[in-house]
Amino acid sequence: MRVVVALGGNALRKKGEGFDYETHYDNALLTFQRLAEAGFFSNDRKVVITHGNGPQVGMEFVRHFLTKERFPMYPLHALTASTQGWIGYILEATLRRTLRERGMEREVATLMTMVEVSPDDPALRDPSKPIGEFMTKEQAMELSILTGLPVKEDANRGWRLVVGSPKPLRVINSRIVKALMEAGVIVIAAGGGGVPVKGDFSGVPAVIDKDRASALLGLEVGADALYILTQVPAVYINYGKPDQRPLRKVRVEELKRYAEEGHFAPGSMLPKVEAAISFVEGGGKRVVITSPDFVAEAERGEAGTVVLP
Amino acid sequence: MRVVVALGGNALRKKGEGFDYETHYDNALLTFQRLAEAGFFSNDRKVVITHGNGPQVGMEFVRHFLTKERFPMYPLHALTASTQGWIGYILEATLRRTLRERGMEREVATLMTMVEVSPDDPALRDPSKPIGEFMTKEQAMELSILTGLPVKEDANRGWRLVVGSPKPLRVINSRIVKALMEAGVIVIAAGGGGVPVKGDFSGVPAVIDKDRASALLGLEVGADALYILTQVPAVYINYGKPDQRPLRKVRVEELKRYAEEGHFAPGSMLPKVEAAISFVEGGGKRVVITSPDFVAEAERGEAGTVVLP
Repeated sequence: MRVVVALGGNALRKKGEGFDYETHYDNALLTFQRLAEAGFFSNDRKVVITHGNGPQVGMEFVRHFLTKERFPMYPLHALTASTQGWIGYILEATLRRTLRERGMEREVATLMTMVEVSPDDPALRDPSKPIGEFMTKEQAMELSILTGLPVKEDANRGWRLVVGSPKPLRVINSRIVKALMEAGVIVIAAGGGGVPVKGDFSGVPAVIDKDRASALLGLEVGADALYILTQVPAVYINYGKPDQRPLRKVRVEELKRYAEEGHFAPGSMLPKVEAAISFVEGGGKRVVITSPDFVAEAERGEAGTVVLP
Repeated sequence: MRVVVALGGNALRKKGEGFDYETHYDNALLTFQRLAEAGFFSNDRKVVITHGNGPQVGMEFVRHFLTKERFPMYPLHALTASTQGWIGYILEATLRRTLRERGMEREVATLMTMVEVSPDDPALRDPSKPIGEFMTKEQAMELSILTGLPVKEDANRGWRLVVGSPKPLRVINSRIVKALMEAGVIVIAAGGGGVPVKGDFSGVPAVIDKDRASALLGLEVGADALYILTQVPAVYINYGKPDQRPLRKVRVEELKRYAEEGHFAPGSMLPKVEAAISFVEGGGKRVVITSPDFVAEAERGEAGTVVLP
């Protein structure tokens, strides 16, 4: 079986935790231990791992902004490449450690990944993807005035910087990802949704949604299943209301109806649901949405949301 | 023929140029155009490209230091991983552009690379590798007091931060580098000398010399030749003196004698010469040391220094 596992922010840094290196390392190690326990790294599974970078690329942006008197600020696409380096390193190191501790002999490769987008994508002129830390409204306004980036309230959790998030059209190195995956190598790729580039490989200052990019990569490498690991154990309808109900098994047509009815929060569950729909409608067999803590139960059909064609 | 090409600082940013993204991009593009003209990307050549990160990882360190009230400082090994991401992106984007402009169909892969070092390496207790910008003595002393890192005068060009530079023992992903190289993929790997890690893949706060790491990687992947591209067109004896003389073809025994006689500056030409010696003594057939501008002439035997067994 071929699977793409998309790691959300929660797999690297839990809500309220700091931005330090050790926090990312410890969470990544725990995530891979959970995946190993659930059988993800057994030899019959060909695996690609992707990851988000929203909080981290925002941190990089603010670091560059705060040091701009001393060094030039880098464009946002280069900052996503930077997070592919250091988050990819943390993931490969903790995954290799997890495999070795279990006596598993598999190889791991972390690939810098560019993803083609259209320079005319309307999303580039309508910033919507939140990056960086949560701030109070006052802090956010101040940073917005200083940096020139807009800010937005995000799912009632606070204010954040927002950037354009164009649609991924093509993963530049998907042939290499597929070849390594087929050879049994566990591939870490498309970090932060990939570095957005035009057809000539020049960068676009934006951040691609990692779930959309993961769905696209999954289709390009012929994955059977896409796992989207996030903060919640399942997708809920009427989320946060008294009649909240988890979806266990759901057909894509039903899920689309719920999405149209507004059950899923933009910038939070909605992009995951949309990625799931695009994967299944593109030919994928199954999407599982759950948290790292529930992934073993989800494999036994006892937790998580499974989206089917 | 299998070759490893180690790109020095000059391939990314010329002496005196700024640290901005565009400077790195333009220099990388020019370097790959030179390499393409010299025939490096023809189909009969299997190629691995490595690169340094001394100035850039120093910049990252200072960025982290200057923003430490807002975000945690990351360890030096994570900062090398960060530079592998963004420098690797610049290299892959400019290389893919170079290949496409010439109608060449080769694939490119950029791999995050860890390199094992010994935690007991004496070099970790004797910082010697310069990183970051050149500074005046006064600026350097101030930064040293603030950051706790030592500083040193570097080859009469100014003062820089210095860090420990342990000996590379094993490139963690060399089997994958070799497999991709053999399949005709141009591989970008071991950026900044690789991320230094212990046997359990935990990071070591140091920076590995990229030429030493490139020589080791070259031997591990069975490369015939190692190209070390740097600021000068050749290796000189009596460098900077009236009787300065370039070495054209030199046997490794002769080169070792010149090194012992002190012809090569520590932190500058000496590590390149030592890397050349280790590659040829380890079984490599040839090392070429020259600048990107002279690489085509070097291929015709009209420039550069060739080190032979």
